[in-house]
Amino acid sequence: MIIGFDADDTLWHNEDGFQATTRTFEGLLGSWADPDEVGNRLFAIEKRNMNRYGYGVKAFTLSMIEAALDISDGNIDTANLQMIIELGHHLLDRPAELIDDVVTVLEEVGREHTLMIITKGDLYHQLARIDSSGLKDHFWRTEVVAHKDPATYSQLLSLHGVLPREFVMIGNSLPSDVFPVIEIGGRGIHIPYPVTWAMEHVDPDVAHFHSAPTLNSLAELPAFLADWV
Amino acid sequence: MIIGFDADDTLWHNEDGFQATTRTFEGLLGSWADPDEVGNRLFAIEKRNMNRYGYGVKAFTLSMIEAALDISDGNIDTANLQMIIELGHHLLDRPAELIDDVVTVLEEVGREHTLMIITKGDLYHQLARIDSSGLKDHFWRTEVVAHKDPATYSQLLSLHGVLPREFVMIGNSLPSDVFPVIEIGGRGIHIPYPVTWAMEHVDPDVAHFHSAPTLNSLAELPAFLADWV
Repeated sequence: MIIGFDADDTLWHNEDGFQATTRTFEGLLGSWADPDEVGNRLFAIEKRNMNRYGYGVKAFTLSMIEAALDISDGNIDTANLQMIIELGHHLLDRPAELIDDVVTVLEEVGREHTLMIITKGDLYHQLARIDSSGLKDHFWRTEVVAHKDPATYSQLLSLHGVLPREFVMIGNSLPSDVFPVIEIGGRGIHIPYPVTWAMEHVDPDVAHFHSAPTLNSLAELPAFLADWV
Repeated sequence: MIIGFDADDTLWHNEDGFQATTRTFEGLLGSWADPDEVGNRLFAIEKRNMNRYGYGVKAFTLSMIEAALDISDGNIDTANLQMIIELGHHLLDRPAELIDDVVTVLEEVGREHTLMIITKGDLYHQLARIDSSGLKDHFWRTEVVAHKDPATYSQLLSLHGVLPREFVMIGNSLPSDVFPVIEIGGRGIHIPYPVTWAMEHVDPDVAHFHSAPTLNSLAELPAFLADWV
């Protein structure tokens, strides 16, 4: 089988950094609005910018700057804007901090199967993360995509000569990693991450319609796969 | 043969927009430094950020904001920062304005050969540009890459099952579109664009070492290819 792995929040920590940065941002804007309002307005701007910017840290940094100008009504001082720029640098420079047991799990699963990374987001940053993770040699192929929808998975699998029925995707996001793969005739395994980006929250009706196995942690994957595929 | 086309400044205008934006930026910073100095300091910040941000409009917008804070020593007002954000939006939202004769040339060349787009930059923005260009159907494959170096071209051609000796790359940049392809055993044709990004300027020694045909315009391509391949 070919086993696809999502990267952010599946192989290494990611969303925790965005959440911590959002808390710091809420603090910086504390004189203009309470933390909840700051967080909500930032998220509204991220959503509005999604089509234009796509995903990733640069998009998030620009949205923070826009939100800061907006929430403060143009009264934020430039020292705080400088700080926001540095929050973005800090997120970009963060080395890949691996999820528990990743290396053992990849070694074990890699003995029986062929592994790919399929990750969504900013091309440069994702490639830099993959390089810094030290995990590259475990993977046959690594792909960064702009959208994780059925059409993209179909195209990608066909480009790499992989049949959907030979393919299992592992990831923390039901709408990105699991549902679209099931839709094209593959399989998906959901391994939730403790925090989920609001943009990846699932419509419960859709979730009910599809069903996919959920594991508590990556460490359970080798034994589960041995039975399942 | 498989004919690869660069996109920005080969199929559609791009650098002219960055240059016009830089002129506007120089105007916004006019109270703090003369246009040349503003342009030079912006470029120095773009260069410093290259490894962290990669290429593209979001990277450029963040560099403009950093340069504005730096050049004004934190004294720029937020209305001007808002304007810089909008300059970025404007560049991102700009529809693909095609280079003269693109459609006829692609039709003509596409009758004999199989066409690909290989473009460098921001994944989301490049895909949006390709979609908005209306040119997609001319191409067998489209690929957005983070780096245009020999290793990337090699990997890409092998993934698509293309032999370097069957491959010709067309583009406006010698270091990105022509030299690395020659290095892996393919061929390249240089079609300069009236303005070149400073980051793509060529070391004359390297340019002398490799040699590749240069055409004055895309319109010359079909006749040239007919003789050359």
